[in-house]
Amino acid sequence: MSTAAPKNLVYKFTNDCSDPELFAKWAPEIEKYRAALAANTLDEYKSEVPEFADDAVFNAVAYLYDNKLLSEDEFKLTDTPATELVSLMGKGLLTAVEVLKAFAHRAVICQQFTAFAMEFFIGEGLKRAAELDAEFAKTGKLTGPLHGIPISLKEQIGHAGKITNGGWVGWLTNIPKEDAVTVTVLRNLGAVFYVRTNQPQSLMHLDSNNNIVGRSRNPYNLKLTPGGSSGGEGACVSFGASPLGVGTDIGGSIRAPAAFSGCWGLRPSTRRISTLGGVSSGKGQESVPSVAGPLARDLDDVDLFMKAYINDGKPWDYDPWCIPVPWRSLEKPDPKQITVAIMYDDGLVRPHAPIARGLKHVAEKLTSAGVKVVEFDPIRTKEAYETVNKMYSCDGNFFQKDMVKPSGEPLLPLTEWALSFGDGDKSYSVVDNRFLNVTRDSLRKDYLDYFVQNKVDFIISPTYVGTAPVGAYDGVEGPYYWGYTSLWNILDLPTLVFPTGLHQDPSIDVAEKIEPRSELEKIEHDKYIPANFRDAPINLQLTARRYFDEETVAFGKVLRDILELKH
Amino acid sequence: MSTAAPKNLVYKFTNDCSDPELFAKWAPEIEKYRAALAANTLDEYKSEVPEFADDAVFNAVAYLYDNKLLSEDEFKLTDTPATELVSLMGKGLLTAVEVLKAFAHRAVICQQFTAFAMEFFIGEGLKRAAELDAEFAKTGKLTGPLHGIPISLKEQIGHAGKITNGGWVGWLTNIPKEDAVTVTVLRNLGAVFYVRTNQPQSLMHLDSNNNIVGRSRNPYNLKLTPGGSSGGEGACVSFGASPLGVGTDIGGSIRAPAAFSGCWGLRPSTRRISTLGGVSSGKGQESVPSVAGPLARDLDDVDLFMKAYINDGKPWDYDPWCIPVPWRSLEKPDPKQITVAIMYDDGLVRPHAPIARGLKHVAEKLTSAGVKVVEFDPIRTKEAYETVNKMYSCDGNFFQKDMVKPSGEPLLPLTEWALSFGDGDKSYSVVDNRFLNVTRDSLRKDYLDYFVQNKVDFIISPTYVGTAPVGAYDGVEGPYYWGYTSLWNILDLPTLVFPTGLHQDPSIDVAEKIEPRSELEKIEHDKYIPANFRDAPINLQLTARRYFDEETVAFGKVLRDILELKH
Repeated sequence: MSTAAPKNLVYKFTNDCSDPELFAKWAPEIEKYRAALAANTLDEYKSEVPEFADDAVFNAVAYLYDNKLLSEDEFKLTDTPATELVSLMGKGLLTAVEVLKAFAHRAVICQQFTAFAMEFFIGEGLKRAAELDAEFAKTGKLTGPLHGIPISLKEQIGHAGKITNGGWVGWLTNIPKEDAVTVTVLRNLGAVFYVRTNQPQSLMHLDSNNNIVGRSRNPYNLKLTPGGSSGGEGACVSFGASPLGVGTDIGGSIRAPAAFSGCWGLRPSTRRISTLGGVSSGKGQESVPSVAGPLARDLDDVDLFMKAYINDGKPWDYDPWCIPVPWRSLEKPDPKQITVAIMYDDGLVRPHAPIARGLKHVAEKLTSAGVKVVEFDPIRTKEAYETVNKMYSCDGNFFQKDMVKPSGEPLLPLTEWALSFGDGDKSYSVVDNRFLNVTRDSLRKDYLDYFVQNKVDFIISPTYVGTAPVGAYDGVEGPYYWGYTSLWNILDLPTLVFPTGLHQDPSIDVAEKIEPRSELEKIEHDKYIPANFRDAPINLQLTARRYFDEETVAFGKVLRDILELKH
Repeated sequence: MSTAAPKNLVYKFTNDCSDPELFAKWAPEIEKYRAALAANTLDEYKSEVPEFADDAVFNAVAYLYDNKLLSEDEFKLTDTPATELVSLMGKGLLTAVEVLKAFAHRAVICQQFTAFAMEFFIGEGLKRAAELDAEFAKTGKLTGPLHGIPISLKEQIGHAGKITNGGWVGWLTNIPKEDAVTVTVLRNLGAVFYVRTNQPQSLMHLDSNNNIVGRSRNPYNLKLTPGGSSGGEGACVSFGASPLGVGTDIGGSIRAPAAFSGCWGLRPSTRRISTLGGVSSGKGQESVPSVAGPLARDLDDVDLFMKAYINDGKPWDYDPWCIPVPWRSLEKPDPKQITVAIMYDDGLVRPHAPIARGLKHVAEKLTSAGVKVVEFDPIRTKEAYETVNKMYSCDGNFFQKDMVKPSGEPLLPLTEWALSFGDGDKSYSVVDNRFLNVTRDSLRKDYLDYFVQNKVDFIISPTYVGTAPVGAYDGVEGPYYWGYTSLWNILDLPTLVFPTGLHQDPSIDVAEKIEPRSELEKIEHDKYIPANFRDAPINLQLTARRYFDEETVAFGKVLRDILELKH
């Protein structure tokens, strides 16, 4: 078992921010934080779960259903989309307290399996739910379009009065006085909060491990990562511990978790959902801005979230970054009028067998449904990958190190990997940064021209080389290659992760022998040992033109029909 | 007469890009360019204009009417808003050729007085107009919502097959193969091009002087500058040489020209009008992005331009920077529902007498009409001014110098001034730039909170300390202080320059004795010698929340009514 990133790919980074002596002083803070998490993972919601090894191939979702860890009513309620829950509450057929209790039960079980949470506050949630119920009883009116809906939040999103650490030990003493805009907006809409979810140190892994609460696991296969950086969200939503969760994404951090754990996840275009308030290393960085967006088990709930957040929440009244543009409710388009291009390989790191199977499956289904399907010939993907990686680190890792320094915490292997992106510690000048932006803008123009001139509506691509990879085992820890997701970040194109309905099957998805085109491709391929990946969801990405977020979701519904996914 | 900027304010800039020997080699290119301009200022459109000294206080607009330099029909036609011209052409009551001929006549006279143009191509425009007429005769249909409308373009906007120099001598050999997006979009809409307008060296003066065709003059008072950097546009549109012009604005470059020469001018929010294609030093700079927008003598034409450009032109099909958000046609709001805050003084450099009179006049008129008028207490204006100035030069002047180097041309005093903004030649790191952005974002948040929490709809402010200042005379050349315009650039708020209907009058607008709060305030106030400014238009700025561009234009129409401006 290796714990370090491959040294030969880590070339321009010096760890001058870790300090074991200083870190030792933070032990009490970490201990206190863990103790609070343990204490607030309320015993009354726990179930008997089997012992499992830390690297067990074990499907917790199947176990949940097979062993009926919830009551019939709880299953029914937590398997109901938020859209319908609101409607039932509006008719007085369900209370917010009932809803939260069921999800809290499922969430605590999820925690027992996946360690997806950083903080539980179920009591506070129940109090809020009771207030909503009282208000409804008095007025007969819902507080808002998300009335009584339990929403899980990535921990980095600032929460007034609660530690907000973003995965950095040194922020364990940070307690914001004000809520992040997203918390304010969702609360105004009637949402109920009860859990904040795990994320990696640096917020720059497609994995979720940190020195505070450790790593989270994938609910469909506990040996695998739930992805990152919104990996707690991916595990939470996919397990059904919340009907809706909020993640953030600067390189794949909503989409890898949604894809790895097996739910829907939307990376909207920039400026639609607020990222103001909270902890991150990205302040003032606008070459490739982070976005926030929803994860859900039902696509209608993605739509509900976007519409409610934007049209009723009016985030532009709180955050000048957000554009006051309504969410357009679109009908599903006629498949016969749509052209989809499929990216089978980005030319840099080809997908593993299960992803290749997923792409082929979707292409066939789309073709049968009358969609025009063409092959996408990747455009300047190498340049895009190299440019976006330089953008991540062009501050010479100043802000990341600045987040580490207060605690001196040791760096995890994937943090070392992230700090080695681009030119690592090399501090860029403003002029260098502008040239990166010029390259980016030229890439955006080329992709726009591709869409417009070829009348292509959508591109479907892998979210990652494989399904969820293993965590820190077998010498191949974590996912290194982000090219499939970060491409859409540098282009700022709305991208929806969707389930194909397929899961990895070691007997079908055998390892292919490939002639690697690069060391990175070799590393990513060597880690595909089929038996490790059993039951891992096979999800893909759907991408459209910038600000065609609504078109993306509307066609997602067509995909749902065509792929016969459960509603 | 001084030709240099005040040395004690120019502190962090070294001229290492001018090279007299190299520059001498460019004399033939400059000569050729000037000769083409002279030759294409067609004699057949010229009128007898009086001799005037280069520093004459002389009202060319009054002269035009008083001496009937156009025929009655030409006056009628060129004084008709574009909105109405299109309608008349749509009814077959007017041809595009007739329209262009009248404007070309007025434009050539404008050139005789103000030297506003860099390039005329009236013949090409007439050919295009004839084609539009032929198409209309055949189909009975207009080509688009700007069918047959002569539109003047700031020269920096790339034009296929035409020299595009942006005011830099070294770009006199630059002939783009492709049109800028704005040229493509406007042509698709039916616009007719015939003239490209003057701008300053560096595109960073609120004046329009360069080493190619020299300086332009203000049509209402030839002693004064028409402003800059879209100064040629300001002179052109205000004189009636075109009904609509396109400028760009990174610190006041649409608004100073509109205000100084006396027309309407809209600085839209970013991403609505394309700036893709053309010559500038701003590539990849997104801390305070440049925007493009219209200038017009009639506000309805500003509305027409925005609506046609956005809704019919769909710039997002060509430029990924543009957001696909329709222009909303709004009714004029009820004045009694509106709150306007007036900024009488930004706390740094107080306005001259005529501007103070204009603000008071507008406040009184608004109050009489039932608008709630409050006083705006400036928010962090010093920080905003210092931050935006650092943003302009934080590349250590790399890109500006890069534009100068090919020709080695001498720097004009206002270029020296611009290159001394912020920390001048000091090259910032990415980290420094991000901290500037953080300050900017916090300013944006404070201004947003001001609007929302005080229920203020609009802020009215000076466009500049005074009316148009003199050019390079009396030891006080040019406008130095940009704080009143650049404030809205760093905040990215839509801002409409509007006429108050008033003009400077030396007998009313006497010089006030002030106790200067800074050297800059002293310099700006010392230059107010009332007799120099006779007849200068008194225009102001109307600012709203980000992306409330439509609300700004709609309330502009209310202002027009209240101020009893001619339609």
